[in-house]
Amino acid sequence: MKPLRIGLAGLGTVGIGVIRLLRENAESITARAGRPIEVVAVTARDPKKDRGEDLSSLRWYSNAAEVARDPNIDVVVELIGGSEGAAREMVEIGLSRGLPVVTANKALVALHSETLTKLSSEHNAPLLYEAAVAGGIPAVKLTREGLAPDRLISVGGILNGTCNYILTAMRESGRDFSDILSEAQEKGYAEADPSTDIDGWDTAHKLAILAGIAFSPIVFDSLPVLGIRDVQGIDLQFADELGYRIKLLGMARSKETGKIEAWVRPCLVPEKAPIASVDDVFNAVTTLGTFSGPMTISGRGAGEGPTANAVVADLIDIARGNELPIWGKKHSGPAIRCLPLTEVESAFYIRLVVRDESGVMAAITSVLRDHKVSVHHVSQQDAQSGQAYVAIVTHPMSEQSISAATKALADLDVVHNEPLTLKIEDSLQ
Amino acid sequence: MKPLRIGLAGLGTVGIGVIRLLRENAESITARAGRPIEVVAVTARDPKKDRGEDLSSLRWYSNAAEVARDPNIDVVVELIGGSEGAAREMVEIGLSRGLPVVTANKALVALHSETLTKLSSEHNAPLLYEAAVAGGIPAVKLTREGLAPDRLISVGGILNGTCNYILTAMRESGRDFSDILSEAQEKGYAEADPSTDIDGWDTAHKLAILAGIAFSPIVFDSLPVLGIRDVQGIDLQFADELGYRIKLLGMARSKETGKIEAWVRPCLVPEKAPIASVDDVFNAVTTLGTFSGPMTISGRGAGEGPTANAVVADLIDIARGNELPIWGKKHSGPAIRCLPLTEVESAFYIRLVVRDESGVMAAITSVLRDHKVSVHHVSQQDAQSGQAYVAIVTHPMSEQSISAATKALADLDVVHNEPLTLKIEDSLQ
Repeated sequence: MKPLRIGLAGLGTVGIGVIRLLRENAESITARAGRPIEVVAVTARDPKKDRGEDLSSLRWYSNAAEVARDPNIDVVVELIGGSEGAAREMVEIGLSRGLPVVTANKALVALHSETLTKLSSEHNAPLLYEAAVAGGIPAVKLTREGLAPDRLISVGGILNGTCNYILTAMRESGRDFSDILSEAQEKGYAEADPSTDIDGWDTAHKLAILAGIAFSPIVFDSLPVLGIRDVQGIDLQFADELGYRIKLLGMARSKETGKIEAWVRPCLVPEKAPIASVDDVFNAVTTLGTFSGPMTISGRGAGEGPTANAVVADLIDIARGNELPIWGKKHSGPAIRCLPLTEVESAFYIRLVVRDESGVMAAITSVLRDHKVSVHHVSQQDAQSGQAYVAIVTHPMSEQSISAATKALADLDVVHNEPLTLKIEDSLQ
Repeated sequence: MKPLRIGLAGLGTVGIGVIRLLRENAESITARAGRPIEVVAVTARDPKKDRGEDLSSLRWYSNAAEVARDPNIDVVVELIGGSEGAAREMVEIGLSRGLPVVTANKALVALHSETLTKLSSEHNAPLLYEAAVAGGIPAVKLTREGLAPDRLISVGGILNGTCNYILTAMRESGRDFSDILSEAQEKGYAEADPSTDIDGWDTAHKLAILAGIAFSPIVFDSLPVLGIRDVQGIDLQFADELGYRIKLLGMARSKETGKIEAWVRPCLVPEKAPIASVDDVFNAVTTLGTFSGPMTISGRGAGEGPTANAVVADLIDIARGNELPIWGKKHSGPAIRCLPLTEVESAFYIRLVVRDESGVMAAITSVLRDHKVSVHHVSQQDAQSGQAYVAIVTHPMSEQSISAATKALADLDVVHNEPLTLKIEDSLQ
């Protein structure tokens, strides 16, 4: 039977993983796809580099755009990365030619959802991106097809392995953020420039995609994003004491008003919640549906094997003719803006570094009272050199009120450093 | 656009759930399916019963076979249950007509895999059964499509909500099996005749289906099945002490010899394993793939909403033309037999009820030594009226050796009752 011919750009870990997977499991992939799947055209910065696979029989091009224009390919696979430049050009050429395009590029899909939706639907060219969200976990297929009948209430989870590794290691070792970050960089779990991961942007890209499938494409710039730089060892200790874990979550929720609440931020998650025990570099996606109820899937969110599996799963769908519109349904109209955080209600955790002397607690509680913060729990722990840590857990209140209260606390003489405020995410089942 | 017309038999909880879901979410289902999906023909034992939905506009038939023969339907949906009789007849008529068939009937698919595979492929009629395995969890789609590229090493999990509810409640309350079973029956979590659930048959049906997708259809009668009747409160206590939870697992593994190890039995699972914290009526499916690594998905395994979601997800796939062969790939050749348990190696937990007197431990350990059982851990706990409980954890050994040793232990004068042997399932990540 006629093979499905792939033009692929980006021969890094994932690209080579795709070629290796297609070769190693050729027989069973052909059986499941109904026809062979073969990479026939490629490009890479250094064609001569030894990548551990024989690539001499492939058609080599000098850039990704040329691969996408190869007249003898059936599918474009973009594994270059980056939301602009060669990656974007390749995807747009592929779609404009009416070819199915498979990408692992979360930034591209999240930032250019409108353009890509338009191109994909105008040229009737499917864009598949299972590998862009949570690596090996079929979160896209789960949301787009497994839960297709349901009206989802929420979708999200732990979407960045680097942050989850750092938070897990900080909790287990009691060591500092910067210390663990260096270690993660040495192990290859974090990039030399770690900002995309630890400042929440990678999580935000993935969340925007999940929200696009579950609800509607969102305006990426309207998504409030906060990373994990300000979380300290003491916060993980307090969380443990209170029966919580700290996780960087990206969550999107459909409100009864038809609006979408979505955010990326470190949260306290009850230790009994399924995602609380998802540790190290593992990712987890959790959904809550009107009919399907709560569901959680966890697995490896990155790496050669898992990501290659996701790319090839998309290729098998294409080979079998299972081609869906980009968001699982025809979408028209502009992307929508997320609800401003100030309109979101939640319980909060506030951690302060204070002068360790009498009267401090009275000063704090009177500020909280003045700002009508209803306090659920307070605990204190001695720190070094005449300082103490204070953790406050509030009852549910608006983000606006908590910001005002935290600002007033920061203005107190006895409060050193900036207070840290974390959302308490109690609703995950 | 022309609607997909459904003929449905079985208007119990799930059947009515399907109709309700199709009506409530009609607009979004049409958008995702690319066309409307409508139930047009039905049958039920009591047509006049008030089911909370207006069914007066549907074509009513006196039996399922007639529904399946309706010339104006596009899909047959079988929600009657039972591996023979009306359910089987309806499915076979549908497939023979070349119509896609959707069923929630695990027993039917597990017991008649050969016949159904043959009918489905001869008539080019897809058979979809997402609702048959783990209810609302898209475990079938995950294994068949999400992991389609990968060579799986194992698949399985917690597949029966009733057993998981009973084991969770026994652990949390310290109460007896029979006590909790009665309570589960009152709550509707267990059937009046609970054997299908608690003796492991329901788990076995679902496991056989997952193994069929991941590896190859198996001969159902070759699957060793053990339920949870013999697990006592003391075992859950010992497990806690040892850092384990007890779960009824169904697992299938592909061996390097090409054979399939598969079984259903209560196991000790390390408390750190993702499925260890899946409690109450929740189900979980876990996979381990060469490329994809470990993955675990948990959610509601039964009930109106989750099961209806699974049925309608299959209908949306059919409406969109995403029709796969019954096991995700063309299968020919007979179903294969599972490896006999005697050839499976594992660590084990043995629990004895013994006379509480000096010399008992010496007698036990000498039997273990004579049977070359390498002991990892022993603990003892006083029981009532001069008896004590002894828990033994072994190093990995063959099932054959553990059986012989357990038999010799049972023959000891100081050992009362039958010893209980549970597998220790250490490999779940």
